[in-house]
Amino acid sequence: MTTTSNPIGLFDSGVGGITVMQEIIRLLPCETLIYFGDTARIPYGNKGNRTIERYSIENTIALLEFNIKLLIVACNTASALALPKLRNLFKIPILGVIEPGAEKAATTTRTNRIAVLGTKGTIQSGAYQSALQRLIPQAAIIPIACPLLVHLVEERWLDHEATRTIVREYLKPIQKEEVDTLLLGCTHYPFLKELFQDEIGREVAIIDSASACANAAALLLKQQALLSPASKGSHHYYSSDDPQKFGLLIEELFHCLLPSVNLLVPGQSHIGEKAE
Amino acid sequence: MTTTSNPIGLFDSGVGGITVMQEIIRLLPCETLIYFGDTARIPYGNKGNRTIERYSIENTIALLEFNIKLLIVACNTASALALPKLRNLFKIPILGVIEPGAEKAATTTRTNRIAVLGTKGTIQSGAYQSALQRLIPQAAIIPIACPLLVHLVEERWLDHEATRTIVREYLKPIQKEEVDTLLLGCTHYPFLKELFQDEIGREVAIIDSASACANAAALLLKQQALLSPASKGSHHYYSSDDPQKFGLLIEELFHCLLPSVNLLVPGQSHIGEKAE
Repeated sequence: MTTTSNPIGLFDSGVGGITVMQEIIRLLPCETLIYFGDTARIPYGNKGNRTIERYSIENTIALLEFNIKLLIVACNTASALALPKLRNLFKIPILGVIEPGAEKAATTTRTNRIAVLGTKGTIQSGAYQSALQRLIPQAAIIPIACPLLVHLVEERWLDHEATRTIVREYLKPIQKEEVDTLLLGCTHYPFLKELFQDEIGREVAIIDSASACANAAALLLKQQALLSPASKGSHHYYSSDDPQKFGLLIEELFHCLLPSVNLLVPGQSHIGEKAE
Repeated sequence: MTTTSNPIGLFDSGVGGITVMQEIIRLLPCETLIYFGDTARIPYGNKGNRTIERYSIENTIALLEFNIKLLIVACNTASALALPKLRNLFKIPILGVIEPGAEKAATTTRTNRIAVLGTKGTIQSGAYQSALQRLIPQAAIIPIACPLLVHLVEERWLDHEATRTIVREYLKPIQKEEVDTLLLGCTHYPFLKELFQDEIGREVAIIDSASACANAAALLLKQQALLSPASKGSHHYYSSDDPQKFGLLIEELFHCLLPSVNLLVPGQSHIGEKAE
């Protein structure tokens, strides 16, 4: 049975979703959070729909073992490809990062010309494009797949000449189009925010889904009377590949104290899979 | 029971191991081959030892369902990290790519100064370094981890400015050291051979494990009287992520006819299932 003191569960393919977790900690400091990075199967961004659905189902089942009261899919690719399936299968409330990010972009743009950066999976799914079009039917949307950026962030090549060359290549379509808003549709991309700004060279609003997703989580918990009664929440990290390596990466990218990380390997589940 | 007409099984995290398969087809045209690319969990190169051991065991079990008479671990990272474990567990003969590659490098070098390029996992394991040192105790070995190259090959950025910049950065330690042999310790790297040659700018022997591994396979089958009696072998492809996408990547990288690829998810019995 769901009680208010149950934790919130989040998953992403790696560390990127921690940008979402940090915004939730800031907004909802009394909540206990369970973060799972599926580092044994990272990246998600260039894998097929059915594979990402399967991974998302397995990750959800693993997090449900912690009796979570809310699931946040803190990964754009999984949000884009697997959210309907998850909501179809599971009873608990589930939030993704696409809708909140699209809403933030829609309220930010003045010219209604928005570029969306994401993985191949996210861009090909059309999830951001549909969400934006629903909010601003006359919007001009330039979707750009940036498959290499996740790896450059994971390598911490945040300001490397090669990263700059690759970003310049990806941003070419924007230089021709007069967009005023750049929507970062991957939780890894905020680490490259300055580089995006440099390469664009003119004023654009660069936004990501993290704070908007945290706002949506706060609203949902309030509406469903599920806010934690505790005075302070605790935060727990799990990864499917080497937990020590995951802790070191979190420490380096987020400039925080080395967190304690435990191993969690989602089991292979057939739940929700169609008979072939 | 093992019979001579049973197939040979090969696995890699992706398409790279097909370089090994092609050499086996050339040398052993009568053998039936089953190739498995674990694209749902690619890359292997920056994941932990235990994860790669687990994946290798699961892949082996999946290939054993085809009654293979020989397993070839056509992936450098899995060969470096999981070969002892696999040989310890399974009865069938198992070949990796490290020993054959090291032997080829050892017979090629004249100055005994050898650079080894590989993934983080392969380089950190020290497998190539130990193998080379056993063959040439006085060898000077320069190991270089090149974690981004797999992704650039998978994106087919084989001659992109960014790829060139990244290769130049990785090869810096070689420019100072007078190596005469460059051992490509990852099945993806042969696609960047020309770029390596360009960036080094002077004469070096660039070698990979594919043909050496095929030679070792031929020798082993002959010694164990397991050579196929057929007049012509057939070749079958499987992948754990979207089989159609895998077929298209094989077609593009190997300039061959679009192969038929089926889905195979280790740990589940999907053998023989067709793509959607």
